[in-house]
Amino acid sequence: MKREFRGLSAAEFFYRNREIAGFSNPVRALYQTVRELVENSLDATEMFGILPEIYVKIWLSDEKSNRVFVRVEDNGIGIPPDEIPKVFARVFYGTKYVLRQTRGVFGLGVKMAVLYAQITTGEPVYVKSSTPSLPIIAEYKLSIDIKRNIPIILEESIFRKTSRWHGTVVQLCIEGNWQQARRRIEEYIRRTALITPYASMRLEGPDLSLEFKRVTKIIPQPPKIGKPHPYGVDVEMLKSIIEGFSNKEARLKEFLMESFDSVGETIAENFLKWARIKNKKLKDLTLEDITELSEKMRDYPEWRRPRAATLSPLGEDLLKRGVKEILKPEYVAAVTRKPSSYGGNPFIVEVALAWGGELPLVDKPILLRFANKIPLLYDEGADISRKIVENIDWSLYKVKFPAPLAVVVHVCSTKIPFKGVGKEAIADVPELEKEIANAIKEAGRRLRAHLTRVEKKFALERKRITFEKYIPVIADSLSTITGTPRESIEKKLREIMLRILGSEILIMREEAEKEVAKVER
Amino acid sequence: MKREFRGLSAAEFFYRNREIAGFSNPVRALYQTVRELVENSLDATEMFGILPEIYVKIWLSDEKSNRVFVRVEDNGIGIPPDEIPKVFARVFYGTKYVLRQTRGVFGLGVKMAVLYAQITTGEPVYVKSSTPSLPIIAEYKLSIDIKRNIPIILEESIFRKTSRWHGTVVQLCIEGNWQQARRRIEEYIRRTALITPYASMRLEGPDLSLEFKRVTKIIPQPPKIGKPHPYGVDVEMLKSIIEGFSNKEARLKEFLMESFDSVGETIAENFLKWARIKNKKLKDLTLEDITELSEKMRDYPEWRRPRAATLSPLGEDLLKRGVKEILKPEYVAAVTRKPSSYGGNPFIVEVALAWGGELPLVDKPILLRFANKIPLLYDEGADISRKIVENIDWSLYKVKFPAPLAVVVHVCSTKIPFKGVGKEAIADVPELEKEIANAIKEAGRRLRAHLTRVEKKFALERKRITFEKYIPVIADSLSTITGTPRESIEKKLREIMLRILGSEILIMREEAEKEVAKVER
Repeated sequence: MKREFRGLSAAEFFYRNREIAGFSNPVRALYQTVRELVENSLDATEMFGILPEIYVKIWLSDEKSNRVFVRVEDNGIGIPPDEIPKVFARVFYGTKYVLRQTRGVFGLGVKMAVLYAQITTGEPVYVKSSTPSLPIIAEYKLSIDIKRNIPIILEESIFRKTSRWHGTVVQLCIEGNWQQARRRIEEYIRRTALITPYASMRLEGPDLSLEFKRVTKIIPQPPKIGKPHPYGVDVEMLKSIIEGFSNKEARLKEFLMESFDSVGETIAENFLKWARIKNKKLKDLTLEDITELSEKMRDYPEWRRPRAATLSPLGEDLLKRGVKEILKPEYVAAVTRKPSSYGGNPFIVEVALAWGGELPLVDKPILLRFANKIPLLYDEGADISRKIVENIDWSLYKVKFPAPLAVVVHVCSTKIPFKGVGKEAIADVPELEKEIANAIKEAGRRLRAHLTRVEKKFALERKRITFEKYIPVIADSLSTITGTPRESIEKKLREIMLRILGSEILIMREEAEKEVAKVER
Repeated sequence: MKREFRGLSAAEFFYRNREIAGFSNPVRALYQTVRELVENSLDATEMFGILPEIYVKIWLSDEKSNRVFVRVEDNGIGIPPDEIPKVFARVFYGTKYVLRQTRGVFGLGVKMAVLYAQITTGEPVYVKSSTPSLPIIAEYKLSIDIKRNIPIILEESIFRKTSRWHGTVVQLCIEGNWQQARRRIEEYIRRTALITPYASMRLEGPDLSLEFKRVTKIIPQPPKIGKPHPYGVDVEMLKSIIEGFSNKEARLKEFLMESFDSVGETIAENFLKWARIKNKKLKDLTLEDITELSEKMRDYPEWRRPRAATLSPLGEDLLKRGVKEILKPEYVAAVTRKPSSYGGNPFIVEVALAWGGELPLVDKPILLRFANKIPLLYDEGADISRKIVENIDWSLYKVKFPAPLAVVVHVCSTKIPFKGVGKEAIADVPELEKEIANAIKEAGRRLRAHLTRVEKKFALERKRITFEKYIPVIADSLSTITGTPRESIEKKLREIMLRILGSEILIMREEAEKEVAKVER
């Protein structure tokens, strides 16, 4: 039996295996197409300090209702004309291969949508784009040469701008199922709008019109391109950073200080001393040296935490606001952890626990997942957070199920360890697992303090009601026995009750403060 | 703000995103490494009619217990020396890009293990291989040039064979966590041995020694390389098949008959008539013609089912045997469905429902998933089967939870639509969903028939016990009244009881036969 050995282009690989990028059926593919385009638009605006204005239009072909048109327009930074063909029609090409928090990471999403259009309807992608600095607008119709992974330019026109417009318009025609995808797409846009309150978003579908106006003009500081954190840098990354370091005469100490995040002179010196590594010149390093360096860098316990400049978390206030708006709970505890890192990638975990109010009673907590401000709606069962939430002993936080509890987890990182290129579930990375669990526990302690207060309040209230109920009866009896008017006895009894309850309120306050102090320690 | 646009090689992409191939942490990476090597070994043996002998050895480095060595040896078909470097050190290269059921599909698994070894321990992969026809053995040490996605040959030696040995030995040294991965690896090997009863497998770990000897020498017919099924062939695939068709003077009818599975003259003619497509010459087809052809091929309702020659299902008997051996239930219903297809890929679904015996009482069915004879142990929550099992109304099949029920789902296909390149969960492809649901329902009806029989049997048993209990009492009273000896009355009563129960048994049998007939209709 003869076997044929051969290679595949990246485009052919993803053409054959489109399910792994979320293009598994007409429902999911439509959802995936919308989100890939929207995420590109959000990255193209807020990353450059532009308040996002995003317009999503979806309509059906007159002939066949499973031919769906998707058009997304933004007011972003645009794409230079000569880069457009590769950005839209070459797999593994883009601007996202730097150390910075972005929604896009794989350089794959929009190409998958283009590929999917091509193989289901045969239609090319239409792109119109202009950058703020160029006086021209470029228009393209593109498809992908799958065997060779290169763009095919079907139409190209460049014309002069008559306005100051900049941004990008992308239009695709795919096989899709609007009826079934509608709910998810709506939910996706809704949650996206909530987690980016400075964006204005409009969605128009065949039987749907949604608009979210921005509620604030304050846009968070865009994340900066950063250096890797020294903890967990692997051998290959280290080799490539050394290769890219221009001054080969430099010694290790200088190299460490210049190449890595949060490494100053003292830390570099302490590390080399701890690791018993000689302060060699870069050009003298052998492969063994580099392997040892990488191992020691991972084991060193004294690195400073990474700085958060490459990241753009929501912060506890915004997170609380978002949660209150979606879930309308009685109480929210929000926690934004300090930066950590895994494999050289800094990350921040944010968690909110929402309790009561309009939340339904559930047997296990409702989980809302976000990664780099992307809502994750599919594959919850495969997500690291689901596992963690299920392993938490909630009784420690005074939660007994069924309970009105929702857990919101937001992970920000220069590299989210997604399990798949469809970006729906986060993998079990130990450092991440620890941080998410700690964040939930921290929020859990706040929730417990709240529930303790509430419990006490209920207990007092019950006492008050009991007193109130018996005071008239007792006053009556005492009045009969002593001859003192009922009204004055009742007044006295009320004063006694308030004194008793008052001291209990004081005790309760003290206990609550102790709980809070415990939480904050 | 300047943006850097650039491309990535496939190796660099997977180096950056190793989580998507299952290499997310030292536990999972060790498990993934073992399974990728074992699956390659199984493909290299049974696909060529060789009874597999597989030896897996895992040991820890003396210096650091998180440096784990993995060595897998097989008696397979081997790899020609000049292909070894690319097969082990070039991403997207291999023999699996044909239409045939194999465990490997992506041409990625072993390269990911090599990459992971390289970035965690810096160690190259060791490979030794020989094919049956060549008189030589080749030995290599290889690593991957990540930036360019090409093999780096560190050592190479070719020597003459002194025995008739053929097969492949692969050895890697990765960062891993044996203590935590051990249970999964054991379970993986155990389930693999059960689903390939013609394989002998041996696993030796630091504190573990497992051996599974083959229980049969009968090896299933190896799957053949096939043609795509006409249903669901997309525009791009159609274009590429037309391009590859040598005789461009041929007309559509001939092209359809020669290029697709299960298309004879009558079917080709009927299809063209139904589709109102002219029997043009291939060279005269426009892009519009091809797009229309693809659409019509998907919509045509009269294609014959695909043939199963490219597939290698277990069959109901083997499946039952496997299930009985693992789960030790009281009853098993097994169903092997007829072939179906999605997107041109034939597939067969097999399902077993196991009931009672040693199965524990559970609130929802235990699910065991297999794809192309690979056990899937991770990411059950993201799998299509989990969703289907949860949506089944089990009360239709007389199952009330908690119940001792396990569902085994085995999908065979020339292309399993895995959700990720880690091959752990199957995506929601509508055709697959329908077949899995139908298979479960078919098995469910058999289970119901069984439970009905059992129920009746219990009812009769209860009646018998009741009779037995009262017969002596009644006999006593009657004997006192009539003067007839107690023994003879008791004997008579017993005869009456047997007559009554006997007719009930007849009725029960009839009803059971009706149930069975219903199932089989």
